[in-house]
Amino acid sequence: MQTVHVDLAHAPYDILIGAGLLADPQAILQHLTQANAVIVTNTTVAALYLAPLQASLVAAGVSVLPVILPDGEQYKNWTTLNSILDALLEHRCERKTTLIALGGGVIGDMTGFAAAIYQRGVPFIQIPTTLLAQVDSSVGGKTAINHPLGKNMIGAFYQPRLVLADLATLHTLPAREFAAGLAEVIKYGLIDDAVFFAWLEQNIAALLRRDVEALAYAVERSCSIKARIVASDEREQGVRAFLNLGHTFGHAIEAGLGYGQWLHGEAVAAGMLLAARASKLLGNLGEQDVQRTEALLQAAGLPVVAPALGFDRWMALMAQDKKVERGHIRFVLLRHIGEAYIATLPEQHLREILL
Amino acid sequence: MQTVHVDLAHAPYDILIGAGLLADPQAILQHLTQANAVIVTNTTVAALYLAPLQASLVAAGVSVLPVILPDGEQYKNWTTLNSILDALLEHRCERKTTLIALGGGVIGDMTGFAAAIYQRGVPFIQIPTTLLAQVDSSVGGKTAINHPLGKNMIGAFYQPRLVLADLATLHTLPAREFAAGLAEVIKYGLIDDAVFFAWLEQNIAALLRRDVEALAYAVERSCSIKARIVASDEREQGVRAFLNLGHTFGHAIEAGLGYGQWLHGEAVAAGMLLAARASKLLGNLGEQDVQRTEALLQAAGLPVVAPALGFDRWMALMAQDKKVERGHIRFVLLRHIGEAYIATLPEQHLREILL
Ligand SMILES: NC(=O)c1ccc[n+]([C@@H]2O[C@H](COP(=O)([O-])OP(=O)(O)OC[C@H]3O[C@@H](n4cnc5c(N)ncnc54)[C@H](O)[C@@H]3O)[C@@H](O)[C@H]2O)c1
Ligand SMILES: NC(=O)c1ccc[n+]([C@@H]2O[C@H](COP(=O)([O-])OP(=O)(O)OC[C@H]3O[C@@H](n4cnc5c(N)ncnc54)[C@H](O)[C@@H]3O)[C@@H](O)[C@H]2O)c1
Ligand SMILES: [Zn+2]
Ligand SMILES: [Zn+2]
Repeated sequence: MQTVHVDLAHAPYDILIGAGLLADPQAILQHLTQANAVIVTNTTVAALYLAPLQASLVAAGVSVLPVILPDGEQYKNWTTLNSILDALLEHRCERKTTLIALGGGVIGDMTGFAAAIYQRGVPFIQIPTTLLAQVDSSVGGKTAINHPLGKNMIGAFYQPRLVLADLATLHTLPAREFAAGLAEVIKYGLIDDAVFFAWLEQNIAALLRRDVEALAYAVERSCSIKARIVASDEREQGVRAFLNLGHTFGHAIEAGLGYGQWLHGEAVAAGMLLAARASKLLGNLGEQDVQRTEALLQAAGLPVVAPALGFDRWMALMAQDKKVERGHIRFVLLRHIGEAYIATLPEQHLREILL
Repeated sequence: MQTVHVDLAHAPYDILIGAGLLADPQAILQHLTQANAVIVTNTTVAALYLAPLQASLVAAGVSVLPVILPDGEQYKNWTTLNSILDALLEHRCERKTTLIALGGGVIGDMTGFAAAIYQRGVPFIQIPTTLLAQVDSSVGGKTAINHPLGKNMIGAFYQPRLVLADLATLHTLPAREFAAGLAEVIKYGLIDDAVFFAWLEQNIAALLRRDVEALAYAVERSCSIKARIVASDEREQGVRAFLNLGHTFGHAIEAGLGYGQWLHGEAVAAGMLLAARASKLLGNLGEQDVQRTEALLQAAGLPVVAPALGFDRWMALMAQDKKVERGHIRFVLLRHIGEAYIATLPEQHLREILL
């Protein structure tokens, strides 16, 4: 087992990474403030992992209330959030009841937000079961639900007490979901760590066959990079924005095609390549680095050609994004592999890369 | 003008207290991060104070979006909160848009919560226009909405950038609402400041005729006491609980009679007298202090006889309260006027004071 410490001034916590953590309740027990917990999960994940988790907690004397939501990004909304809150209130859950998110980023984001606002905040533990959730959404304390007018528009910064990344759960993850998670892993190499990027180039096949040692290294590296960035900028005023590499483009793809057509990681993959191309047009990233980026994304099974939304629609969609300030879109770009910066892009460059 | 500094480690801010502050946009302008603002208010307060505030901001070059909600505690819910969020999204408000709450505690609590969760947090300014909001709900960063199963059950701790308490707005406040605010003012004397309590006994008539000097003193003292308590315990782990004197009983009264029958301050007044009586039964507060409490509440025009809900219903209603831990109800009690403590109450004492 590996531990990544997320060193937030007011709410530091650990991410435990290893295969089989789910069956061992010790780490969870240490973090419960009271012997009861609510496990929030969805129908898919419940069928796979709820029983062992629940049994191990119950055996340790914890009273457990499972709340099982429908599966899908389309349920990451007010209505589903309310069903969590209703369950908490109907069962008279108190301020010391811990919410445990068991699932991917959708479950983690909604459960975290429910924990943030139930009685103005109750303890919260994440057990991410997708690669994306293990390397990204469970780190950093962003929680949210979607609004008909925009994704993740309603939410809170709220930190878990503990994150348990059980690598064994990744074996049941569909290939497309796994690849989507790899997009974020590759992102960390691109924005922060050229050595890790090179490691990924060498080990992409091992990752794709879900070799546990390769996974442990990739998840640990990813969490460490994100944890360090988040700890230095919890409220997203500065460097944390680097984590949005490819995301302004990616969000436009997700919204433009309709949520659910492309997975988040797929959209981010195509978006990162757009960012790489734009960086090259600005005279920063070299052609070889653009090609390495494209090759690694492709090797990971990710799309590298963004959809042709039409320039005006691209611009309108990107203007919705949270990274907009006073109407100017600020893009995360690359100086070279392993180093990001932020700038606006001249319209002519945008016209060149967007179809 | 007086200033009370709320010395929170991560989000310190000032409360400005004076007559006529609404017409002077300077303080607000200093705190806007961008030249646009959303004023959230209700139909009643909009008719009285929206035009001057909006005009002064617009004259200073600020673009202003007013969001006018229906008036009443029954609208402090998901639906109304969503209408604020919808307006923000429809007008593409960005992360630097400041929300200004103009109104009583209902508007302040909902606007603060909307600010806390819109795009995971946008700047927020309070302009409380009821006495209760000036001395209580605008200080300390508690925000919330109600749930069918409990009041203020969904919310966040979220601090404003600035609070402007314009004493002139209190002149239009209905007498019953004014008295309800006095209940919280009297509470500060009871839990923390025997000298202030004695001042209130002397000056209750001046307050009731809304003498500006008396108001300025009472509001400043109240805010100072609450600010100091809150600063030492932002997340309500310890001494902040003293602010709940009379509230466990009061919430039961509000819920038991149906919200809106008794005003919050009225329920708290009757609740504080129950707490005083219980304190006496435990051998703490003397009979004379119980009588002074009753006399001051009565002089302020507040109810001192709690409704007869029946013992079992009292207990069931109080068990719903957020102050419950592992099933035990922890009450705020008085050692003497000016000093509070926390304890559970034996059933026999509860039976003696509750009808
Ligand atoms: N909070 C953040 O910082 C952050 C960062 C990135 C993404 N996100 C959010 O995360 C969400 C995407 O997360 P995701 O990619 O995990 O999607 P997801 O939660 O929808 O999970 C993907 C699918 O995999 C299933 N699944 C989960 N674990 C499984 C397992 N072990 N075996 C088999 N199937 C499993 C899920 O039921 C779902 O059908 C988006 O809503 C996005 O906004 C949040
Ligand atoms: N956040 C906190 O720490 C905290 C503390 C105490 C109470 N509260 C909340 O505050 C709310 C009660 O606040 P409230 O007592 O201000 O009630 P309120 O906001 O409902 O206002 C009372 C009435 O007075 C009207 N009004 C407001 N200002 C006026 C003015 N200047 N002239 C004429 N009419 C005016 C309002 O429209 C309303 O009809 C409750 O929801 C309670 O839960 C919150
Ligand atoms: Zn992402
Ligand atoms: Zn109160």
